[in-house]
This record gives sequence, C-alpha cells and structure tokens, in this order.
Amino acid sequence: MSARMKMYGKHRFPGRLFIVEGIDGSGKSTQLSLLHKWLESEGYVVSSSEWNSSPLVQDVTRRGKKKKMLTPMTFSLIHATDFADRTEHYIIPPLKAGAVVLADRYIYTAFARDVVRGVHPDWVRGLYGFAVKPTVAFYFRTPLDVAMKRILGGRDAIKFYEAGMDLKLSKDDDIEESFRIFQGRIVEEYEKMVDEFGLVVIDATLSIEEQQAQMRKIVTEALTGTKKTRIRRWLDLASLAKGSRE
Amino acid sequence: MSARMKMYGKHRFPGRLFIVEGIDGSGKSTQLSLLHKWLESEGYVVSSSEWNSSPLVQDVTRRGKKKKMLTPMTFSLIHATDFADRTEHYIIPPLKAGAVVLADRYIYTAFARDVVRGVHPDWVRGLYGFAVKPTVAFYFRTPLDVAMKRILGGRDAIKFYEAGMDLKLSKDDDIEESFRIFQGRIVEEYEKMVDEFGLVVIDATLSIEEQQAQMRKIVTEALTGTKKTRIRRWLDLASLAKGSRE
Repeated sequence: MSARMKMYGKHRFPGRLFIVEGIDGSGKSTQLSLLHKWLESEGYVVSSSEWNSSPLVQDVTRRGKKKKMLTPMTFSLIHATDFADRTEHYIIPPLKAGAVVLADRYIYTAFARDVVRGVHPDWVRGLYGFAVKPTVAFYFRTPLDVAMKRILGGRDAIKFYEAGMDLKLSKDDDIEESFRIFQGRIVEEYEKMVDEFGLVVIDATLSIEEQQAQMRKIVTEALTGTKKTRIRRWLDLASLAKGSRE
Repeated sequence: MSARMKMYGKHRFPGRLFIVEGIDGSGKSTQLSLLHKWLESEGYVVSSSEWNSSPLVQDVTRRGKKKKMLTPMTFSLIHATDFADRTEHYIIPPLKAGAVVLADRYIYTAFARDVVRGVHPDWVRGLYGFAVKPTVAFYFRTPLDVAMKRILGGRDAIKFYEAGMDLKLSKDDDIEESFRIFQGRIVEEYEKMVDEFGLVVIDATLSIEEQQAQMRKIVTEALTGTKKTRIRRWLDLASLAKGSRE
C-alpha cells in the first residue's frame, strides 16, 4: 500500500457487499446462509467472511478471552485488527473482482458492543474508518425474549464475553441475567444506528420465508447491473484471494 | 471500565510521564536509561514501559512479522493493541499512584512509522486518542549518517520491518539502502510533529553527558511539586501493578 488508505464510503468496486447485523438469536446467520445459497443458484460468485475469523489474530483473541486479559480497549482493538486483516484479504479482493461478498456481522457489531463496554462512540467509529461501506446492511430487529428463547433453547452454554460478564452487570454473577442486560443494551445501540447508518430493518419475528423474501427483493434491486460471473472467473478469483495472503 | 474512556490530554494524575522518541541509533534509549538511574538515586519511584512489549500481543506480533503477514493497517492496529494494554496495565496505574513513568518510544513512533507505511495521518492520531499525554516528550534529533553509523557498527543485523523492507523502497532489495530511505522518511514525520505535539528537541550529536544534563534540567522543572516516594509506597505500587494484570 503505497497510496494512502481509503476511507469509509470512498470505495468504488464492481462487486457488492451485503452484511447482516442483530443480536445473537436474531436469526441473521440463517438468513445470510439462505441468501448465499440462493445467490449461487442464481449464478453469482459469492464470497463470505465471518466476524472474528482472521488467522492473524485468532490465537490472541482466544487466549485473551480465556485468560480474561482483555479490557474494553484491547477487546475493541483486537477485533479491529481482525477486521482490517479480513478487509484487506477477504473483502476487498473479491469486491475488486466483481463478486458478491456476504458478511455475518460487520462494523456495527463493534460499534454496539464496544460502546456498551464503555468505549467512546466517536473513537470506535474512527477506528473502523477504513472499512468498506456495505451496499446494504440488514438489521434483524428481535424482541429480547424471542432472542433469549432461541439462544437458551438451541445452543451450548452462553460464553463469558458474549454475556458481557466482564462488565459485572449481574449482582449475583448470573450469566443469564448478565446476558439479558448486555444484549438489551446492544439492542439500544443498534436502534440508534438504524438512522445513523441507514440500516435496513427486517422484522425477525416474521417467518423465515417471509424474511428471506424481503431480503432477496432488496438484494435483487441492489444487484442491478452486476454481472453474473462464470466458473472461469470464479477460478481466477479463488487464486487471487489465495495470492493476497502470501 | 464502566465510565467512558478518557481521551488524550484529559488525564490528571499525580505522577509524571516522560517519553523519548527518535530513530534507531539516536541514542534515546541510552539517555532514558541514564535518566532512570538518576531519578531513582534522587528518591523517585520510577516505572518504565517499552514499545511493543505487552504480553497480550507478543506472539501475534512475532508471528505476523516472521510470516510477513502484516499489512500497514494490521501492523498499525497490533501496535495500538499493545499500546492500549500497556497504557491500562503499566502506564496509568503507576501514574495514579504518583510514580514517574518512563517510556522508550510512544505514540509518535506509531504516527511516524505508520504514516510512512501509507496509513492515514488523521486515522492513526485518532486511533491513539486514548493515550495519556506525556508530561514531556523528548525527540532526539539525529543526522541520518550518524544514526546509520551507530546502527551498522554496534548491533546485530537490521530486521525486515525495521528497514521498511515491506515497502519495497530499494530496487535491489538492499536492506541497508531500504533502511536509509525508510528512516529518512521517519525523520521527516518526526520533524513535522515537533510543532504539532510540542516535542522537546535534544541535539543527539552532543556528548552523552551534555544531552543528559539538558534532560535532567527539563525533568527537574517538570517534577516540581512531585513527591519523592518512599520504599513503603513502592511496594504498594508493585502489588498494584501486579493486581491490575489479573
């Protein structure tokens, strides 16, 4: 990178970036997965990137969380490092190549969580100033009770940081109570961001099919003019993404 | 941290923070080490923190550098994570306890290096918005030839990132040529920061004794009103710093 880093909103790529946001249990990952399969079946080249998945910082995140060494600031910065690595290796190259990129959680997850942890809202927004602005950012609005039921019913134990246990929100260190308070505050932050960033709200209490139909309609409109790419192109893209890591 | 994170310049601690900046071979570390011993002999409680030394991110920095996985952005963010961890565990607690804290390299090192690597100057300044403003920031101004002679004469091989080899500055991949170009650009950034941040310039071509005399004079003035702390206090401080890591 000899030229200056580009800032949020300044990118002009042939590809499209769709991201989903919402609290745990909002059903956003299910919806994104359905969208992914549908886009592929429609002939688009689809690439995806998950929150907190960069190989560069995986170990430090895991170890930091395990040993509870993370403060709100270092928690925030480690996630930003992960995000920067993924932006440069897994988001920008496919967008340049004209692919559709899907991201499960994006900068708004950091804005919500970090601010609830006490990090300054302006600072964290500046921190992610290098992010590519999504073509569409979906927010799955979910009543807390619905999300709690889904989480408690169908999954493994709630994790320490996921429940915001580092914030000592529950007097009795009750992880379920802490989770509810923490996720409630995250919802408040998301709601503030709907206008600030133009998040597209999906009512996550609707049926899976209805939510998916709404998403597809919006995505279809946003894809107008985007070329469907052939297998040949897909292979080029795969080698391109691989090369960018070396 | 339930309260909002404080921003640069907003801290009011009983302790004092003195930091040194300059290119490799400027002699800043020698000067800081002499100052450290002198302050202790004068009865002050002195604590020190080195650039890039936090246990939290040591591994990722080492591995990232070794495998050359770091881009300018992730390089910058990892150093900021290191700095945030040290600020919260090794800089703020002793300052709160009234100690004198010394730092070999500070935020200005990041501002110089990251900007030379192509990171946006405003972004990186915002990134370090949580840093404690130093009581005095010394900048050791050194002609490049003098620094080069010291570096090449007295040390192990120059390292890849230290020479800015990731920037491909030298056509023939000559590490000495790259080092010279890279350090020259860093000097330009430092010079811009002298006025921006009120860095106190020390002429690093003067004798070691003369430089140290200038430093001590300035530090003495800045310490007016700071209490010299006794052994009892020092022990409290050590346990405090230890506790903050757990």
